[in-house]
Amino acid sequence: PHEGKTELEKADAPHLDELAAGGISGMTDPIGRGITPGSGPSHLALFGYDPLKFEIGRGALAAAGIGCDLGPDDLAARITFATADGEGKVTDRRAGRISGEENRKLCRLLEKIEIKGIELFVKTVKEHRAVVIFRGTGFSDALNDSDPQVTGVPPLEIEALSPKAEKAAEIVRNFLHRAKEVLKGHHPANMILLRGFAQSPRLLSLAEIYRLRPAAIAAYPMYRGIARLVGMDVLATGGTIEEEFSTLKDNFPKYDFFYLHIKGSDSAGEDGDFQRKVKVIEEVDRNIPVLTGLRPAAIAVTGDHSTPSVLKSHSWHAVPFLLSSPWCRPDKVGGFSEEACSQGGLGRFPALKVMPLLLAHGRKFTKYGA
Amino acid sequence: PHEGKTELEKADAPHLDELAAGGISGMTDPIGRGITPGSGPSHLALFGYDPLKFEIGRGALAAAGIGCDLGPDDLAARITFATADGEGKVTDRRAGRISGEENRKLCRLLEKIEIKGIELFVKTVKEHRAVVIFRGTGFSDALNDSDPQVTGVPPLEIEALSPKAEKAAEIVRNFLHRAKEVLKGHHPANMILLRGFAQSPRLLSLAEIYRLRPAAIAAYPMYRGIARLVGMDVLATGGTIEEEFSTLKDNFPKYDFFYLHIKGSDSAGEDGDFQRKVKVIEEVDRNIPVLTGLRPAAIAVTGDHSTPSVLKSHSWHAVPFLLSSPWCRPDKVGGFSEEACSQGGLGRFPALKVMPLLLAHGRKFTKYGA
Repeated sequence: PHEGKTELEKADAPHLDELAAGGISGMTDPIGRGITPGSGPSHLALFGYDPLKFEIGRGALAAAGIGCDLGPDDLAARITFATADGEGKVTDRRAGRISGEENRKLCRLLEKIEIKGIELFVKTVKEHRAVVIFRGTGFSDALNDSDPQVTGVPPLEIEALSPKAEKAAEIVRNFLHRAKEVLKGHHPANMILLRGFAQSPRLLSLAEIYRLRPAAIAAYPMYRGIARLVGMDVLATGGTIEEEFSTLKDNFPKYDFFYLHIKGSDSAGEDGDFQRKVKVIEEVDRNIPVLTGLRPAAIAVTGDHSTPSVLKSHSWHAVPFLLSSPWCRPDKVGGFSEEACSQGGLGRFPALKVMPLLLAHGRKFTKYGA
Repeated sequence: PHEGKTELEKADAPHLDELAAGGISGMTDPIGRGITPGSGPSHLALFGYDPLKFEIGRGALAAAGIGCDLGPDDLAARITFATADGEGKVTDRRAGRISGEENRKLCRLLEKIEIKGIELFVKTVKEHRAVVIFRGTGFSDALNDSDPQVTGVPPLEIEALSPKAEKAAEIVRNFLHRAKEVLKGHHPANMILLRGFAQSPRLLSLAEIYRLRPAAIAAYPMYRGIARLVGMDVLATGGTIEEEFSTLKDNFPKYDFFYLHIKGSDSAGEDGDFQRKVKVIEEVDRNIPVLTGLRPAAIAVTGDHSTPSVLKSHSWHAVPFLLSSPWCRPDKVGGFSEEACSQGGLGRFPALKVMPLLLAHGRKFTKYGA
């Protein structure tokens, strides 16, 4: 299909092609050859944190995404509102996709649960999703999910996966027991499932590592969350591509590093919609002059992973990368695509090396050794 | 400028092109992507020593460069003769560029300073630079520089950066105090600044690691120093390119590994002199037949880092590399340049891998495993 071309190869993207022609290109491996990454580890790699060394649990990511800072001892988990039948078996893992308003109301009810010795925060994410944060001491995140991932069975019992998680397991079981009572009359959202127990990953910030003053422009909570965890200012922004570029322009003088995230191409890939993904790329391309007009010292255009619409999911394939800077040594690549970038002067390299490369071209580094 | 070409791309270098055409090429990263190296770590990498693991302090490099072997407990530092005003503030960090003769005279005076329990060596490097070696026991090189790097302020007080450096700090402060008295009447060289405190890096020699009998041909002290530290015989040589190649020819039967260093292309790059750098490359090229005429089993031509004249400094860019040997598997590269080598069969690789590659082609390795 599509003459064996990728969405990026099919897209008509003259501005990206021009950037590639004047810059230097290559292909990155987000985590390693053959490894399909989640967005958490692949973003960590792009921001210079070894994704095999640092791990951000889903709960911590979700908390950060809605602007909740985790304390060093806090334990966070993702909540999914669900429907249970009379026997307590899960019949709908999305609780009939309840409204945001209903979600917020139920979160307020859950937050009123009192458990001795701890503070409890329950916050809406969106649709049927929320976050719970247990604030106390002596916690560990070595707990299994209660979400069974399928319907027709009861939720899983919370167990400590390590002796040091016994205290947390006890508290979470207590919370789930009380939540059942609180939600009893709120069908279809008459139960919750928990997953992704996590404590703060405690990453050094980009300011501490590189002395940067970084900002993030991203419409989706998860990407805003990752940005917060590495110490970026997360800017208020409209959610369209045009609005994101406009946020970049408005804030350009205030920061020396920007991360601008486009969600649409990944979503279209996940949905298996080749044409929509092409269109998203073309829309990004139309906005590139806003970026180049700001004359940054270095521009990198890349993805945190591939999402081929033919696979309807993230994939392990290498990711095209282009670097444009007055200080780069241009190669022969004349356009931005998987095919073109695989001939690029940067060769194939780990996404973990993107940050040093970018900062070198931004003249942010001093010499190593005498 | 220069139609976007590098100095090597501009240079007319038919012999190097011929070597590349018959050999296999690639691009190396001296330390890592985006990292601009000093010559110390980048040479260590080329000689097969991981520059992130082994460190050669400036003092140790300077001592080795003038032929002083450091004992295991010795502490070395670079001396800069400088001018102080009546209040002890630095007014000239080069002491009006004193003559070598004056330098040697002052070193002899400084070497007469007696400090209880240690031996002292003070040796001229060149111009306003010298080296001091403190020979004793219980030293550490965890000391800050006294050189403030700017004028208009007094030198910095020497402090122990670790408790185990207290003894060394005390002795160095004593030496600096006495040096002040000794140099009082010798305006403009009426003070010294110290920097780059270092002990011997204690590297295994190339003979120990690879059973080589290696020799170095380099005119500049620092490169001679690095060569000594990895156990090369440093050959007496004239300083022109022609003289260096002639030293190679004369000594060819006596060794099985040669490191021949050309300084001029780096100096021209540092000076921002594009044309001079092109000319140096062309002069090297004219001497290549001397090298090929000796029919070595393997020839590598590369740099320890880039020094683009447009940046007037070392840079992080990848470095062209060519390997010529009857045992290499040639690629399609037809000339020696950044552009050509980036399409080479060796791909892009860490400079740390140059040595095994070269020794393999020189048939110096046995099989790994059964």
